[in-house]
Amino acid sequence: MNRLSMNQMTVRSLTVPQLLDACQRHGVPAVGLWRDPVQTNGVTKTAHQVRESGLQVTSLCRGGFLTNPANQPEALADNRRAIDEAAELGAQSLVLVVGGLFDRDLPAARTRVADAVAQLAPYAAERDVILALEPMHPVFCADRGVLSTLKQALDMVEAIGSPAVRVVVDTVHVWWDPEVEVQIARAGERIALYQVCDWITPLPADVLAGRGIPGQGHIDFGVLGECVAAAGYSGFAEVEVFHEEVWAADPEEVFARVIRAHRELVLPGLERHLSG
Amino acid sequence: MNRLSMNQMTVRSLTVPQLLDACQRHGVPAVGLWRDPVQTNGVTKTAHQVRESGLQVTSLCRGGFLTNPANQPEALADNRRAIDEAAELGAQSLVLVVGGLFDRDLPAARTRVADAVAQLAPYAAERDVILALEPMHPVFCADRGVLSTLKQALDMVEAIGSPAVRVVVDTVHVWWDPEVEVQIARAGERIALYQVCDWITPLPADVLAGRGIPGQGHIDFGVLGECVAAAGYSGFAEVEVFHEEVWAADPEEVFARVIRAHRELVLPGLERHLSG
Repeated sequence: MNRLSMNQMTVRSLTVPQLLDACQRHGVPAVGLWRDPVQTNGVTKTAHQVRESGLQVTSLCRGGFLTNPANQPEALADNRRAIDEAAELGAQSLVLVVGGLFDRDLPAARTRVADAVAQLAPYAAERDVILALEPMHPVFCADRGVLSTLKQALDMVEAIGSPAVRVVVDTVHVWWDPEVEVQIARAGERIALYQVCDWITPLPADVLAGRGIPGQGHIDFGVLGECVAAAGYSGFAEVEVFHEEVWAADPEEVFARVIRAHRELVLPGLERHLSG
Repeated sequence: MNRLSMNQMTVRSLTVPQLLDACQRHGVPAVGLWRDPVQTNGVTKTAHQVRESGLQVTSLCRGGFLTNPANQPEALADNRRAIDEAAELGAQSLVLVVGGLFDRDLPAARTRVADAVAQLAPYAAERDVILALEPMHPVFCADRGVLSTLKQALDMVEAIGSPAVRVVVDTVHVWWDPEVEVQIARAGERIALYQVCDWITPLPADVLAGRGIPGQGHIDFGVLGECVAAAGYSGFAEVEVFHEEVWAADPEEVFARVIRAHRELVLPGLERHLSG
């Protein structure tokens, strides 16, 4: 389990202290945190508890939502606060969900994202926080994330040219992409974070909750893990599940299922490269 | 309305004769037909009624479903029957929805599609039927269509190298793609059909029924129409809507709404190139 990180949303009924305790008891060495529950618990208090626990924080979720032309200053200010929080928590990266459309001009929305991330990059770099751009599955293009492919995210990263701006490879968002293997190889050390969950069918009524535990769906975690490892990624696989059945289950059982999926499906991909 | 084609699914409560009659009464010069209702009406009878009506048939929907490794011979045989039907109806193209995953090996499923389409191409060419590969929105990759982008479809078309194999540009499937403009330009005369409907939010529980009348959603039909026209496409805009509210409405009202959307949103894009 040395490369498993438990994202807070996977066991979202737990408070921050309960989550840290459960990770320690189950031997999970890292967590991905979310801003709302961290703020409820207190950022400084959470930072202290995390240090006490010895756990690593692979991500803070999430900044972004940079596409609304009517509130760019407020969005930038909120992202600076998120960067501050990530720095205080010692999070390896701040995940950016860039935001959806506010009219029908998709290229303009994408340009707003690039401009805003470029403005945030120096602030993040000064605080040693990685801004991890998350290309999102195209099903979310209209209402959540206009950044739709890894290629597009890497083009943006290269144009911004800051080492503080990198990408998330989240299996559920990229698995369908005919160019995913090529683009993961291209990403190389710019992969800030490898997130895993599975694409399930039939999709639930709320497509946002269509992300299962690896093994519940259609994704080949062996191939994607091998690609990520071959690109040089040696970090954690952060399990971020959005699924009503998982959310309704006993968190102790969810930990056990996630640990088993990590061992049987996720880790073999990540380690195939090392043994190959 | 000289470039409007009404796809049968948009007013699916109508029988084939009712559909042909409604098109004539509303001055709509073309239809897109579906195999099931055509078979119910009789293929030969439908072909006769279509010729009597003077309407053009922009497409027959649909062939494809070529990814199941357990029934390739049956799938190929059914596609040959669909080609025969398209030829008898005088349909300009047979739309291919290629099929989803049957295991977790996505590259293998895509290879099966390419192999099957290559096998069908000579049969279609002999009968003057265009096989129109439909790249589908990635939300359908697992369960309906592993062909996910226009680039991927054009790569396949070029590899097969038959003039009988071309592509559909359907706005709802391609609008999110950061490369859509480049790939439409690349497609050129290989655009067999331009289908239009809108991406709506919130998505309905059945994502398949998330395709509205142009104007109901997020797509910029001006830009996409202009791209298609600039690529040399001079054919019809076939309106194919899957939407519970539209299906429940009076077909006469649906005709009126579609005609208005065509005139106000779709046609101006297609004609901007000509006047520009």
